[in-house]
Amino acid sequence: MSQEEVSPAIVNENGEIEKDEDIVTPWEIQSASEKGVDYDKLIVKFGCRKLEQDLVTRIENLTGKRAHPMLRRGLFFAHRDLTAILDRFEQGKPFFLYTGRGPSSGSLHLGHLIPFMFTKYLQDAFNVPLIVQMTDDEKFLWKNITTDDAIKMAHENMKDIIAVGFDPKKTFIFTDMEYMCPAFYNNILKIWKVVTNNQARSIFGFTGEDSMGKSAFPAVEAAPCFSTSFPQIFNNKKDIPCLIPCAIDQDPYFRMTRDVAPRLKYQKPSLIYSSFLPALQGAQSKMSASDMNSCIYINDTPKQIKNKINKYAFSGGQVTIEEHRKLGGNCDVDTSFQFLKYFLEDDDKLEEIRQKYTSGEMLTGELKAIAIDIVTKVVLEIQGRRKDITDETLKEFSTPRKLDFDY
Amino acid sequence: MSQEEVSPAIVNENGEIEKDEDIVTPWEIQSASEKGVDYDKLIVKFGCRKLEQDLVTRIENLTGKRAHPMLRRGLFFAHRDLTAILDRFEQGKPFFLYTGRGPSSGSLHLGHLIPFMFTKYLQDAFNVPLIVQMTDDEKFLWKNITTDDAIKMAHENMKDIIAVGFDPKKTFIFTDMEYMCPAFYNNILKIWKVVTNNQARSIFGFTGEDSMGKSAFPAVEAAPCFSTSFPQIFNNKKDIPCLIPCAIDQDPYFRMTRDVAPRLKYQKPSLIYSSFLPALQGAQSKMSASDMNSCIYINDTPKQIKNKINKYAFSGGQVTIEEHRKLGGNCDVDTSFQFLKYFLEDDDKLEEIRQKYTSGEMLTGELKAIAIDIVTKVVLEIQGRRKDITDETLKEFSTPRKLDFDY
Repeated sequence: MSQEEVSPAIVNENGEIEKDEDIVTPWEIQSASEKGVDYDKLIVKFGCRKLEQDLVTRIENLTGKRAHPMLRRGLFFAHRDLTAILDRFEQGKPFFLYTGRGPSSGSLHLGHLIPFMFTKYLQDAFNVPLIVQMTDDEKFLWKNITTDDAIKMAHENMKDIIAVGFDPKKTFIFTDMEYMCPAFYNNILKIWKVVTNNQARSIFGFTGEDSMGKSAFPAVEAAPCFSTSFPQIFNNKKDIPCLIPCAIDQDPYFRMTRDVAPRLKYQKPSLIYSSFLPALQGAQSKMSASDMNSCIYINDTPKQIKNKINKYAFSGGQVTIEEHRKLGGNCDVDTSFQFLKYFLEDDDKLEEIRQKYTSGEMLTGELKAIAIDIVTKVVLEIQGRRKDITDETLKEFSTPRKLDFDY
Repeated sequence: MSQEEVSPAIVNENGEIEKDEDIVTPWEIQSASEKGVDYDKLIVKFGCRKLEQDLVTRIENLTGKRAHPMLRRGLFFAHRDLTAILDRFEQGKPFFLYTGRGPSSGSLHLGHLIPFMFTKYLQDAFNVPLIVQMTDDEKFLWKNITTDDAIKMAHENMKDIIAVGFDPKKTFIFTDMEYMCPAFYNNILKIWKVVTNNQARSIFGFTGEDSMGKSAFPAVEAAPCFSTSFPQIFNNKKDIPCLIPCAIDQDPYFRMTRDVAPRLKYQKPSLIYSSFLPALQGAQSKMSASDMNSCIYINDTPKQIKNKINKYAFSGGQVTIEEHRKLGGNCDVDTSFQFLKYFLEDDDKLEEIRQKYTSGEMLTGELKAIAIDIVTKVVLEIQGRRKDITDETLKEFSTPRKLDFDY
C-alpha cells in the first residue's frame, strides 16, 4: 500500500493506541477533552484535508443552492478528493452517493441521522443516485446476536432512514446479508486479494484473537464504493465514482479502499466527513444508542425531548444566575448550543443566540428552551414521514432496480 | 476449538513445516519416500480414522452393491464419522454428497477424476443428491488470474466433471462467484464468527503476508457442508448432513468445519478420503496439472496415452530382462500397476498381474501395455460423454433448483 494512505494507522508501531490522544475508530470514539475530539489533529493523523470555505462556495455555485447549514458551519469539516467529484459534476459526468450504517436496536437517534440529513441535501442539490449500505453482517460479527436479529434491526433502521426523505426513484438501500450476490462478491474478492493480513491489522487494529469474520469484513464495506457492485442499479455502466458522506470514524475503511482502487483499475471514492453530534452529557463522547439518556431518539415524544434536554443537556452556563450574567456562558461546550449548530437553519438567529449566551444576556433555561423547540421540530418532521413507511415502502427502496438517473 | 479437531496442525508450534515429514496441505503434496505419502502416519497426524473392511462390508450390505474398486482396495482409505451417515441411511434419513475442485486450465487429468468417479459410485449406490463446488474464488485469490478467467476455467472443468456421468436430476454444480447469494453468505458469516485468526493460522498456515482473501476463503469451502446454504436445492429443508468424498489434502477445511458445526447447531459433515493418484513419474508427487508430462489428461488421444505411459510411467521393474526374470518387479512403486489398482475393475485379474509382475514372469512392457489399454478405455468412455456436453448441459446442472430426492 502507498505510504500516503496507510501510514496514519489507528495503532502505533507497537500495536497500542496512544493514551493521550482522542480515540476515533469505527468501533470507539473517546475524546480526551471536554470540547470533544480535536478534529484538526484528526485531519493530520488520518491524512485527509480540511474542507475550506472555497469548496463550500464552489458547491453553492455548482448546485445553485445555499450550502447546507452543517456544511457552511464546518460540521462537515474534512474531505478526500471532493474536488475530483465537483470537477466531474461540472463536466456533466455522473457520480453517485454512498453511505451506510451498522444496524442498532430500536429507533435511530439524532447522531445517527446527521450523515443522512446531509446526504439528503447532497442528493437534492446534485440530483444523483444514492446507495445506502446496512451492515447487518458487521453487527452479527461484532455482537452476540443472530443473523435474523441483525436483519430485523437493519429493517427498522432502514425505515427510519427512509423517513429522512430520500427520493425512492434515486435511492437503493440494502443489507449486506440480503443483497449478497455475484457482482458484490466479485468486488469483495478483488479487494481481499490486494490487502494483506498485516495491512488489515495496521489499518483496523485486528488481532489474532479476533474472528476471521472481522478481518474479512472491511472489504464488504469497501466494495459498494465501486459501482460494478450494483449492475442493476447503474444499468451495467462501468466504474462510476462515488462521494461518501459519513462520520470521520469510518475513514479507515476508505483509506484502504482509496489505496486499492487504482490497483483494481477503479476510480478512488471521494469523501466528505462530519464531526460527531455530542451526547447530551457533553462533547467528550458521541451520542450512543447503548445509553438511552445520552440521546434524543427519533421516536421520542416532545415531552421526552423536553425532559432529556432540560435534565441531561450539558450546560456551558455558570452555576448561579448572578455569575452567568457577569461571566456569560460557554457555547463551545454547551450541548444545547451544539444542537442548534446542527439543526437551526437561520444563521443570523444562531449568531444572535451565541452572542447573547456568551455575554450572559441569555440564561441556560432560555437556551435550552430554544434547543427543545428546534430539536422537537426536526424529530416531529421525521415522525410525520416515518408513520407512513411500511414494509412495502421498504421493499420499494431495497429492490435492486435501475435508479432514475441520466448516466 | 476443541483440542481433538485442531491439534493436528500443518505447522508445528514454531510455525514451520517439519522437514522429515510428508507435506500434505490443500496447496502442496510432497512425499519424502518413493512409495509416496505415508497414509497411516497421515491418519494419526490429522486425527481421522482408517477405513477398515467392516465398513466396506457394511456399505455393500446397505447398498446391495459390490463396493467400488477404489473402496475395496483401500484407495479410499480414511474417514471421519462415516458410520453416522451409514446409520442415517439405514434409518431412511436423508443425506447428501458434497465435493468440489479448484479450477485448473485445460482439461482435467485422471488424478482430478478420482474423487468424482468415486462420487458417482456413491451417488448411484445411495441414490442421493450431490453438490459440487468449483472454487473459482480460491483460484482467483491464489493465482495471478482475473475473475473472468477463473470462471471460464471452472466452466470447462465442470463439463469434464459432468462427463463422469452424474445424474442431472440429482446433481448441482456451481462456482462460488456465480452462486454467491444470501443463504450461502449467511453460513459463511456464521463460520467466520466462530473461528479466530489465530486458529485459521494454525489450521492453514496463513501468515501476515497472505492476503485477506486467503484468510477469508476457508469458510467458503466449509459453508456447503451445511444444507441451508442451498435452500432451492433442498426445498428449504433444514440441516441435512453431508458425506464428503475427497482427497485427504482437503482435511484442514473439514477439521475446521466439524469443529464449528455443533456451535452453529449444525450436524458435522462426514468424510471419506482418497489417497493421491501418483504422477507418471512416480508416487513421490501427485499428478500435477502444471506438468503436462506428469499426467494423463481426459482429452489425451489413445496415442498420447500410449506414448506417455511408455515413456514416463515410472517402472518397478529391473534394468535388464534377465534381472527382472530373476528378481521380479516392485508393484508398490510401479505407476502402471498403481493405475490398474485405481481403474481395473476385475480383482482376480489385478491379483494375477501383481503376482506375475512381482515374480518376474510379466515384463514391464507387458504391464505397461495392460495399463495403456485400461487407462485408454477409461478416458475414451469419458470423452464419449464429454463431446455431447454443451453450455446448455452446463446450465442445466448449475441452475439452482430442487433436486430429485425424497426428503
